Amino acid sequence: MPDFPFSFTLPTPETIPSRFDNHIIRRLSALRGQFLDAEAYAARLAQEDSLIYEVYEVHRPEVEGEFMMGISIVHPGLVGREFNMTKGHYHAILATAEIYYCLKGEGFMVMETPEGETAVEALAPGRVLYVPPCWAHRSVCTSRQTDLVTFFVFPAHAGHDYGTIERQGFRKLVVQGENGIEIIDNPRWGAP
Amino acid sequence: MPDFPFSFTLPTPETIPSRFDNHIIRRLSALRGQFLDAEAYAARLAQEDSLIYEVYEVHRPEVEGEFMMGISIVHPGLVGREFNMTKGHYHAILATAEIYYCLKGEGFMVMETPEGETAVEALAPGRVLYVPPCWAHRSVCTSRQTDLVTFFVFPAHAGHDYGTIERQGFRKLVVQGENGIEIIDNPRWGAP
Repeated sequence: MPDFPFSFTLPTPETIPSRFDNHIIRRLSALRGQFLDAEAYAARLAQEDSLIYEVYEVHRPEVEGEFMMGISIVHPGLVGREFNMTKGHYHAILATAEIYYCLKGEGFMVMETPEGETAVEALAPGRVLYVPPCWAHRSVCTSRQTDLVTFFVFPAHAGHDYGTIERQGFRKLVVQGENGIEIIDNPRWGAP
Repeated sequence: MPDFPFSFTLPTPETIPSRFDNHIIRRLSALRGQFLDAEAYAARLAQEDSLIYEVYEVHRPEVEGEFMMGISIVHPGLVGREFNMTKGHYHAILATAEIYYCLKGEGFMVMETPEGETAVEALAPGRVLYVPPCWAHRSVCTSRQTDLVTFFVFPAHAGHDYGTIERQGFRKLVVQGENGIEIIDNPRWGAP
């Protein structure tokens, strides 16, 4: 039996949706091992287990034909030269896409495939990003003042595989260079 | 082999996406038989086969795990007391959802199921609408000056069934009443 249509508001600039089923909070301690500069990570964590990102999820049945959706908010900050970012993940059902619509802020989506292809796409308000099936994805907030806020949609049966990225990281990193933001190779990619 | 991520901009208020693969134009003649007031329809058509709505589609392979997406623009206007609207459709693969994000304008999404459930949800900028699997959907522009502009996402393998709605219409109509906008029962629903 089909259930009932519904709608909700994505208010800007407040960015907390008017309806949600779950609020995920990820602090610095949840990203252990993901930042390149282990000393800077330890120093920052010793100071405070600060809030890195939040997700407001709108749940639907986890079956084909339905969508999961929500709002992702990455707060500004640096760990060494590296910008605050999400853990990043593959979908458990690998061949499923995801769409992001950027509502606020500045940043990048860092992506890669199991075969080693990489892509880093800029995010800015009004920008739609298509993450094709089979691409792992992580969002990075490069503004020093403003949250990176995106609305996301993915197939409700896709699931998440966080473990692969936790083990090997992403091949590309987004860092503050001397002359601006730089996309660099991750020298520790694949390290145990 | 997975193909490459991409992004594009949904500029407001211009609303034509910076990237698209197909531009669909629907004029009044394409909605023959859909408006309640047949005389008003014939009179307006005799004057001009005016533009009712446009769709900018971003194409993806029509397989499970991919999304189709695009921008729908319904222009203001009336046929008798009834507001300009899209043809409306079921998905060919019925049990597939769709998500709309309203960028501009005012209007409604008129929806129904094969079992006879109905829903009419208001659309306004910043509003997300979830059309669950198995619900036919049509957007209606109720502003007299401003286009109704929505960004939509649906599973790429879903396909369209326009024929069912062409034959029977929707059970609910959105009309200009004496004291404002009214949602009324369609007295000709199901008529041959």
